[in-house]
Amino acid sequence: PSKITIEKTKNKFGDCPICWDELGKNPLASTVCGHVFCFKCLKQALLRLKQCPTCRRALRDERYFHPLYIPTV
Amino acid sequence: PSKITIEKTKNKFGDCPICWDELGKNPLASTVCGHVFCFKCLKQALLRLKQCPTCRRALRDERYFHPLYIPTV
Ligand SMILES: [Zn+2]
Ligand SMILES: [Zn+2]
Ligand SMILES: [Zn+2]
Ligand SMILES: [Zn+2]
Repeated sequence: PSKITIEKTKNKFGDCPICWDELGKNPLASTVCGHVFCFKCLKQALLRLKQCPTCRRALRDERYFHPLYIPTV
Repeated sequence: PSKITIEKTKNKFGDCPICWDELGKNPLASTVCGHVFCFKCLKQALLRLKQCPTCRRALRDERYFHPLYIPTV
């Protein structure tokens, strides 16, 4: 008999709002407003425009985002 | 025939390092050092001791952590 697995989809990472790649494939970052992106996507976005790509909060300097380490299974 | 699903385990949230409940069941928070917990667990831990429960960085006031909104599927 085949082994049946019920795949649980909640609590799985969605996609980076900038590149649409799956979050967690690349190193992550969070803004202080709590929005999550690939680290490289956020860093690059902030070079162009000093605001959160998700909520548009002003993010003036490096203290306004940080690397993010989410426990995974 | 049974439908077979290969469950992908990477990119799924692990557990809160404080209460061991699955991350994402409850509202989340991140410290500025990038460590992730249930919001209520981190808030309560910081009432006792002003340091990150994971890496022990000093976290002196409310600006040192924030709510975290991770896109999920
Ligand atoms: Zn990205
Ligand atoms: Zn934001
Ligand atoms: Zn917890
Ligand atoms: Zn920490």
